[in-house]
Amino acid sequence: MSSAAPTLLTPGPLTTSLRTRQAMLQDWGSWDDSFNRLTASLCEQLLAIINGASSHHCVPLQGSGTFAVEAAIGTLVPRDGHVLVLINGAYGKRLAKICDVLGRRFSTFETAEDQPTTAADVERLLNADPGITHVALIHCETSTGILNPLLEIANVVAKQGKRLIIDAMSSFGALPVDAQETPFDALIAASGKCLEGVPGMGFVFARKDALAHAAGNSHSLAMDLHDQHTYMAKTGQWRFTPPTHVVAALHEALAQYNEQGGLPARHQRYTKNCQTLLDGMATLGIRSFVPAAIQAPIIVTFHAPKDPRYQFKDFYERVKAKGFILYPGKLTQVDTFRVGCIGHVTHADMQAAVNAVAQVLDEMQVLDI
Amino acid sequence: MSSAAPTLLTPGPLTTSLRTRQAMLQDWGSWDDSFNRLTASLCEQLLAIINGASSHHCVPLQGSGTFAVEAAIGTLVPRDGHVLVLINGAYGKRLAKICDVLGRRFSTFETAEDQPTTAADVERLLNADPGITHVALIHCETSTGILNPLLEIANVVAKQGKRLIIDAMSSFGALPVDAQETPFDALIAASGKCLEGVPGMGFVFARKDALAHAAGNSHSLAMDLHDQHTYMAKTGQWRFTPPTHVVAALHEALAQYNEQGGLPARHQRYTKNCQTLLDGMATLGIRSFVPAAIQAPIIVTFHAPKDPRYQFKDFYERVKAKGFILYPGKLTQVDTFRVGCIGHVTHADMQAAVNAVAQVLDEMQVLDI
Ligand SMILES: Cc1ncc(COP(=O)(O)O)c(C=O)c1O
Ligand SMILES: Cc1ncc(COP(=O)(O)O)c(C=O)c1O
Repeated sequence: MSSAAPTLLTPGPLTTSLRTRQAMLQDWGSWDDSFNRLTASLCEQLLAIINGASSHHCVPLQGSGTFAVEAAIGTLVPRDGHVLVLINGAYGKRLAKICDVLGRRFSTFETAEDQPTTAADVERLLNADPGITHVALIHCETSTGILNPLLEIANVVAKQGKRLIIDAMSSFGALPVDAQETPFDALIAASGKCLEGVPGMGFVFARKDALAHAAGNSHSLAMDLHDQHTYMAKTGQWRFTPPTHVVAALHEALAQYNEQGGLPARHQRYTKNCQTLLDGMATLGIRSFVPAAIQAPIIVTFHAPKDPRYQFKDFYERVKAKGFILYPGKLTQVDTFRVGCIGHVTHADMQAAVNAVAQVLDEMQVLDI
Repeated sequence: MSSAAPTLLTPGPLTTSLRTRQAMLQDWGSWDDSFNRLTASLCEQLLAIINGASSHHCVPLQGSGTFAVEAAIGTLVPRDGHVLVLINGAYGKRLAKICDVLGRRFSTFETAEDQPTTAADVERLLNADPGITHVALIHCETSTGILNPLLEIANVVAKQGKRLIIDAMSSFGALPVDAQETPFDALIAASGKCLEGVPGMGFVFARKDALAHAAGNSHSLAMDLHDQHTYMAKTGQWRFTPPTHVVAALHEALAQYNEQGGLPARHQRYTKNCQTLLDGMATLGIRSFVPAAIQAPIIVTFHAPKDPRYQFKDFYERVKAKGFILYPGKLTQVDTFRVGCIGHVTHADMQAAVNAVAQVLDEMQVLDI
């Protein structure tokens, strides 16, 4: 079954290892000690990835990544807080939307989709409005694959005495972040991205003192990270039924992550995947959208061929028939498609995907790239 | 691996079939047509169980059951609504807590934990406060196993022109509800209960016209069922990353549900499980807490033995060593433990569990039951 399934070159859900999926063949009682140990081990291993055990709590949350982002904003930004949201793509816009729906005061700063936010921008904006309490940033903006300069921005935010919330959904586990060097109140990620688990839970690394002062902030019962953490610290259990199989799969995925050499190895594999992809597509004349210097090795946006014989839907189905699932573009102005570099895939898979693309363009008689 | 794992006699997560778990051995692209078909088929089959296709939408939601309950309240109760919450246990109290956190006006009516709410109670309460717009009810109060008289209450609520929200988390799929006979605006359940899927998603059956008028009510982006439904109706996709493997498992669990004879067969199996359990425990002298007439065949609360040699923790570990995971009691006044009747288990399993309990009480020298 799984061998016949196409390889997912998407930013999550992505291709996982058979070993990770096999961890879901067991049922777990959510009240049982053995499951509590699984949860505790998971949180411990996640904290180790960011060297955060001394400064941050890991608070897991049921649901998709967006649930964890909303929970972090709702729990850690006080009701009278003011969030500066840095935007250069769809996920930045979603952060602003969340602030809006939650009724938190917010300002936005938007750059072009191929333009990172700079630390100088943030410094200027914070100087201009001293009422800002929090800055919210997307680390890797998955809608294009652009990387924002996290460390520089974090330092500026800290220097001004403000608090940083980082959506690191698509970068966590592959791009290094050290909680002792990069100051932040919250960093958010999920199970089904670079850790190569299956989707169904997110987690928030929350600075201990920020979380301790967050009682009563939340707009929601289910998404209250203060409650979730307090209950878990007391009982070892999740407040509401955990996605037991998703948790077990992530635990098994983390075992493999560590066996394979942890973050440096993951970073290296994805970088090689990304380079193989970029080089291969370049030989076909297909240009990437994001300049190389700010391209994260997570997902690559490519300009769609100009040829009228190219239609994404047809292209997608033909590449899928050859065993690879690509991803649509997420830009409004430019016609693009995306290819993920993450998941249980190697550079050989990326080369095979490029070969499949070449064959498909040939079949479709797409000449004008 | 799974054969060595103990049988879960808990109200979810519960024991699932190997076939259901094996459905998680495949990865799915969440943007792909084949996954969209899975979601559509899921919603169609779920609606069929309540005969609701003509009147209700099925809106799936990431997260645990509580997320779906909160989403239903937040989306379907207008900001100036007033909810009457009917309470006879922990889940009713949680409903009230949700209204409180969300800032919805609410009143509560609480009966003893072994006392169902009656339709006469509801009629009196609605007459006394015409400002009430919605009534919220737990169908089977899982904290004891008590069954509330849904149809009678629903008729009273409808007669008074009010709207009903039903938390049917632990009863859906096993106890019959016909959306054409029982008037309600929302009925809420989840993947990991009587359908015998794995935990990780909930779903809300929302009356079509109520949902259509619910834009802008929600306090949350992630839990906005109006948005979730509108996006899904337009694209066939979930708004945010779905728990793909949980969805696939639930789809496979539903196939088995239908092959086995649907709701009547599930109801019959659980009823036999429950009767075998009650009879077997009675022979050991262990008394159930809820009177037989209002005992749902979902989970049974038993009085703990009076003998000082009985300690739940020890009892639990010993029964677990014999292959069965029980559940702690959830009552504050009385010392109890619970045994679930739901999941991929038969009356033979229940008899084996009773035998294990008998052996353990003997080992522990618990004489005074
Ligand atoms: C940067 C970023 N933020 C947020 C999300 C949202 O996550 P989800 O789709 O799991 O809700 C994603 C998903 O790809 C993402 O890449
Ligand atoms: C009646 C009832 N409501 C709500 C819930 C909460 O569901 P969850 O633990 O999945 O959040 C449960 C869980 O058992 C339940 O039985």
